[in-house]
This record gives sequence, C-alpha cells and structure tokens, in this order.
Amino acid sequence: MKRIDSVKNPKVKQWKKLHKKKEREIAKTFLIEGFHLVEEALKVDGLVEEIIISENENIPANWKIDNATWYIVSDDVLKAISETETPQGVSAVCQFQSNNESMLTKSSKVLMLDNVQDPGNVGTMIRTAEAAGIDTIVLGDGTADLYNGKVVRATQGAIFHVPIIRENLQTWIEKCKEIGIPVYGTALENGMPYTDVKPTTSFALLVGNEGQGVAKEYLSKTDKNLYIPIYGKSESLNVGIAAGILMYYLRT
Amino acid sequence: MKRIDSVKNPKVKQWKKLHKKKEREIAKTFLIEGFHLVEEALKVDGLVEEIIISENENIPANWKIDNATWYIVSDDVLKAISETETPQGVSAVCQFQSNNESMLTKSSKVLMLDNVQDPGNVGTMIRTAEAAGIDTIVLGDGTADLYNGKVVRATQGAIFHVPIIRENLQTWIEKCKEIGIPVYGTALENGMPYTDVKPTTSFALLVGNEGQGVAKEYLSKTDKNLYIPIYGKSESLNVGIAAGILMYYLRT
Repeated sequence: MKRIDSVKNPKVKQWKKLHKKKEREIAKTFLIEGFHLVEEALKVDGLVEEIIISENENIPANWKIDNATWYIVSDDVLKAISETETPQGVSAVCQFQSNNESMLTKSSKVLMLDNVQDPGNVGTMIRTAEAAGIDTIVLGDGTADLYNGKVVRATQGAIFHVPIIRENLQTWIEKCKEIGIPVYGTALENGMPYTDVKPTTSFALLVGNEGQGVAKEYLSKTDKNLYIPIYGKSESLNVGIAAGILMYYLRT
Repeated sequence: MKRIDSVKNPKVKQWKKLHKKKEREIAKTFLIEGFHLVEEALKVDGLVEEIIISENENIPANWKIDNATWYIVSDDVLKAISETETPQGVSAVCQFQSNNESMLTKSSKVLMLDNVQDPGNVGTMIRTAEAAGIDTIVLGDGTADLYNGKVVRATQGAIFHVPIIRENLQTWIEKCKEIGIPVYGTALENGMPYTDVKPTTSFALLVGNEGQGVAKEYLSKTDKNLYIPIYGKSESLNVGIAAGILMYYLRT
C-alpha cells in the first residue's frame, strides 16, 4: 500500500494520461471510477492492476484485492484523475479485456455496432446486450473507443462480463453467416417490420451510426434488414433504444 | 426583424434567464436550439414566440414564421444563450405546451414517469413514447423538468407532438383504472415477466427512478407489476431502454 498526497506526483500524471485513447493503446490499460465499477472489475481475475482510494473512504471487506497495488490518495489526487464532476472515492487501473476472443457457435447471439459515435450509446448498448444474454459484441470501425471513460461508465460494469471484440464488421458478418447464424441489419428503407421475423436461438444484430444508420455495404450482406415501426411523428428512435427493443424481441 | 450584436443587450440577459427552471416557470416560456427542433416547434400553431438566428445562417424557406418575432444575432450572442458546446445557428423561445390536457379514453396508451431524474432519460423516453404511439405522458413528482434544455434536446422534437402532463401519479393511476385501462408498474421484486401479459390496445405503463425504481405506494395501486428478465450479470437495464422494450411489446 502506497500513499500519494500531491497531484504533482509522477504517478498521478501517468494515470491522467489514460484519459487519452492514444495513451491507453500504448499502456493497454484504462481507468475506471466508482465503487460499483471497481467491484465488478475485481470479479474478473487479474484485471485490476491498481486501486486508487480516497483517504476518506474504506475498503469494502469483500473485495478480493490480492493482485492489485493499492494507493491511498488525497481527494485532490482523486479529483485530478477523475473524468466526472463528482469523483466517487475510488478509481482503478484495469488491463484491456483479455476475453475478447468469442467462442462463436451455431447458437450464439451477437450484437454488431457500425460507427456508433456517442460513447453513452455504445456503453448503454453493451449494458443492454449483456443483460439480454448476448454472448459476443463486435465494435466496428468508427465506433466510440471501448475504453473511453463515458463508454465504461455507461456499461455499468457489463464491459467486464461479455466478450467485446474490436474488428472489421465485414469479416464478422461472413463468420456468422458461414456458421448458420441469421444476420439482421437495421434500416429505415427497404427493410421489413421486425415483428415479421420470428425470435430465434441465435442471431446477429447489426445497428449503425446515429445519423446515417448502418453502412450500405453491410446492409447488402445481411440476411434481412429490419425496422421498428414509428407510430408517431418522430423520424427515428435512439439507436440504443432500438437495439434494446430488437435484442429482447429476437431472443424471446 | 431586429438585430442584436452585443451580449450585453438586455434581451440576451432575458433569454439566458430561461436556463433556470424558476425563471421558466415565471415566464411560461423555454428555449430550444437547433434547426431540427425549431422546425418541429413551428409545426405547432402559436408555440414559437421568438426566433433567434445567426447572421451567418439562412432562414429555411419552408418555415412558417408569421407569428414569431425574429432576431438576427452575432454568433457571440448565440453562444451566450446556448447550453451546448457548439451552438447550432438558431434558437427559439417557445411557450409552455398548451396541449397538456389529455383526452383519456378507453383505448389510450399512457406512459407515467415517477421521479426519473436524468434529463437525458426523460427526453429519450418522451421521444420513444411518441414513436410508439403513446398518447399521454405524465411526469410525476421528482421527475426532471420538462423544459430543461437537455430534456428538450433528447426528445428530438417529440415534446411538440404528444400531450405531456405534470401531475400527481396517484391521481393518474386512479383515472386510468376507473376508465378501464390496465395499469402496469415496473418492479424487480414481486413482479411477473413482461411477456406473461398480452399486448393490448390500451395500457398505462409506470416506470421509476434510476436507483430506487417506482415508489412502493404506486406499485401497490397498479393492476400488475412487470419486470424484464436479465439473462446476464447486469443488475438492471437503463430505465429508458426498459421503457422502450415494454412500450413496444405492450402495443404490438
């Protein structure tokens, strides 16, 4: 256990670097904040490298802390490394997910994100997907960085409990089709109402960018493209909401 | 048409006041930003009082502008009255919704929010509800202010197309039950899986606070309380996502 009071400590500078994607990719680590997230991360063996706790907080007795280095810090330090307005009393440095190799089988449920740019949307979809029993999430090009603080917070810890892969979607659409998993795109034009397809054991659902939707090159490769009917005057649904409705419908 | 260049103009001060709930309640008006929102507001007769446009933007030819006062302003002025990081070139002052009297009938679809605090959640739920064909939204005590800038932006204009009432939920639960509309609460405990109820023409769905859910006093008054099964390790879904899944399921 180490103690750091000054925000000028080199360690603090090192932690703050992790706010930037480029630095995260070099270090292969990312920062998380808050008791709930740290507790969820500690459930995964070997994930948490460092725990940074306020001198005014207590370490929950049920935390498995053997493999992590502990730092007791001043609230100033915690505030300096926090990306939220009101720091939560604890932060941690985690390794990039190692469970990013999906075991794709005939009965897999897959969510693919094409160029979803809002970190809150990406995080919320990861949270919903994990809850809906999705077993693989694929983040395609242009999608917000998985280890962005807002993404991680919006997952509410689900990031630690489902394999998440950052890879080209073309490859994944083909992988799913080869193995016999039906691939459903989402599109407002030239699609069918989602209730026209029957819920199935396995599916791959592809959702897209907040403004442009899923890229045409992908939509032309899917088995079917679905839309959610709009009964009011709105032009569309939020992508996170749409993905939630579809994942729960398809898996019923 | 008037021109304002200086951020010190008293009119600018007046507009900025509308960032505060207290001032909105006195003026009975609220600010909106962006071409999409202003266009949606203009579709409702007599709603828009003032339009504030950047000197670097053009007025879309299809806007019905007869009843509104126009202000051409410098970008500095627009920035001063904006609540977003990148102002959208146009803002407007709107009257509080006058269509807040719902015509509740036996076939109504109602969404009730109990103490939902996050403005983004409230706005997104209004957007989803309008899209799902909900005809009355009731905002109960503790719910984020309808005219908060974040709420309005997250509705994407749906705020102008569905009656939204700010009233006590107890009254509304009773109203719905009297008229024969089934009232469904949402609860993780002592509820039934949502798929155990059949979709119906009319329903009232009650969702609650991000942390505590729906207050017990309301849950004891509903016909049934529903939950969405969690197939993963997450503890819950985001309330906006849960409401989206339930509204689209119940109305199918």
